[in-house]
Amino acid sequence: MRIPFIKMHGLGNDFVVLDARENDLPDLNESIARGIADRHTGIGCDQLILLQPSDSADFRMRIYNHDGGEVGACGNATRAVAMLHGSNATIETDGGMLAASPRDGGASVDMGAPRFDWDAIPLAYPMDTLSMPVGWEMLQNPGAVNVGNPHVIFFVDDCDAVPLDRLGPEIENDPLFPVRVNVNVATIEDRSRIRLRVWERGAGLTKACGTGACATAVHAMRRRLVDSEVTVALPGGDLQIAWSEGETIRMTGPASESFRGSFEWDDYA
Amino acid sequence: MRIPFIKMHGLGNDFVVLDARENDLPDLNESIARGIADRHTGIGCDQLILLQPSDSADFRMRIYNHDGGEVGACGNATRAVAMLHGSNATIETDGGMLAASPRDGGASVDMGAPRFDWDAIPLAYPMDTLSMPVGWEMLQNPGAVNVGNPHVIFFVDDCDAVPLDRLGPEIENDPLFPVRVNVNVATIEDRSRIRLRVWERGAGLTKACGTGACATAVHAMRRRLVDSEVTVALPGGDLQIAWSEGETIRMTGPASESFRGSFEWDDYA
Repeated sequence: MRIPFIKMHGLGNDFVVLDARENDLPDLNESIARGIADRHTGIGCDQLILLQPSDSADFRMRIYNHDGGEVGACGNATRAVAMLHGSNATIETDGGMLAASPRDGGASVDMGAPRFDWDAIPLAYPMDTLSMPVGWEMLQNPGAVNVGNPHVIFFVDDCDAVPLDRLGPEIENDPLFPVRVNVNVATIEDRSRIRLRVWERGAGLTKACGTGACATAVHAMRRRLVDSEVTVALPGGDLQIAWSEGETIRMTGPASESFRGSFEWDDYA
Repeated sequence: MRIPFIKMHGLGNDFVVLDARENDLPDLNESIARGIADRHTGIGCDQLILLQPSDSADFRMRIYNHDGGEVGACGNATRAVAMLHGSNATIETDGGMLAASPRDGGASVDMGAPRFDWDAIPLAYPMDTLSMPVGWEMLQNPGAVNVGNPHVIFFVDDCDAVPLDRLGPEIENDPLFPVRVNVNVATIEDRSRIRLRVWERGAGLTKACGTGACATAVHAMRRRLVDSEVTVALPGGDLQIAWSEGETIRMTGPASESFRGSFEWDDYA
């Protein structure tokens, strides 16, 4: 069975999009998702995105990481999918309901309301998520935010100086985080600009993490370090994040299509 | 302009194939080749392969490395292209004339005659290429063979124990090799089997290097360490190499298609 796909990226974070909104696909499992995501023998991507019909939204978006595991949220993929859809859309995800509007060269996405309760992150035990009394070497007193997936955020003088390839996996797998965590190290440049590097759960160092930009901006706003609209500068490029207490998060940034193609399902099953 | 392509791999060494045998393509330059080869924002590949008409063969194969530079030979790509062609073919390359026959699940390729003269490798100054009086730490007295591209070959007790990620780039860029060199570390398991790891010029550590398997097998045969037909076991899988003094090299092994697609040329130009 020949399966069509679209390859897209947002700030270098790249996706294979399979569209099962109108035509059924064979069942996807972890092994097939891993095969498709393989950069040498498959199509290659950070995340595999599956679009399905939804009873409660215009469509449902399911997200499989490079390692085959399903996750609840991916900000960059949400912009790409919104751009692909081509008009305003509500999107059902395991991380919550999203709303998105395509823009020239990208999209603006309502990422839902952030959650701060310790058991919503989730953490292993109760703790103030605005300033957690924990630390790993130079990384101390982080905040935690769930934006459909769990994030821990550290503010440092120079995020480029943090050995994130070493500390990232250590923090990701700390027992404090029962479903692991995405690790954000950020530097406040001024009240409207944050520089950010992210160690992504299950993916490692990436060029850009949309949900990390949302979580980091929201945490900086809660700490009153920045204004309610900021640019988050990631290695792959910039995102605009807007949020106010009690509101949902708006993320705006680029997305683009790299190519389209098709593959033989049986080669990957 | 919408450009079709085929994505293939041989032992995990992967290629984007552009077929300009019947329909012209816009001119390819290093920047476009790099853009297509980018694994996040392009199609992603180790090598970009361009098929063109030829006056002297069934078609011409041009090979661009991941860094955009053009090279003379790629054994794995030759099998993939032979499989794609679907019948016996002569193939003009910058490294010499090749002949290939598709087989079930792969291809058998006549890789031409190896060259051993010091100035054909090329080396910077005259030297016996059967046992060169040079060395780098645990890697001593290599041989050198040109099989369309330059190779240096070291036999060691356990090739997996060699820190090739450190020594590979040092040897590749040694002034002894004026056009740089591919670095092969090999272990003779018995008279019909060689285990091999390769540091590829311009590409680094790879899962499989077809020309490296040819050069290593030929050097082992010249040294009378193995018979005239051997299996070369690379991290990505096995290749069969046959050669006798004065003859051309025959390489047999797998190749497969991963997917097909098309991209917008202007997005990469």
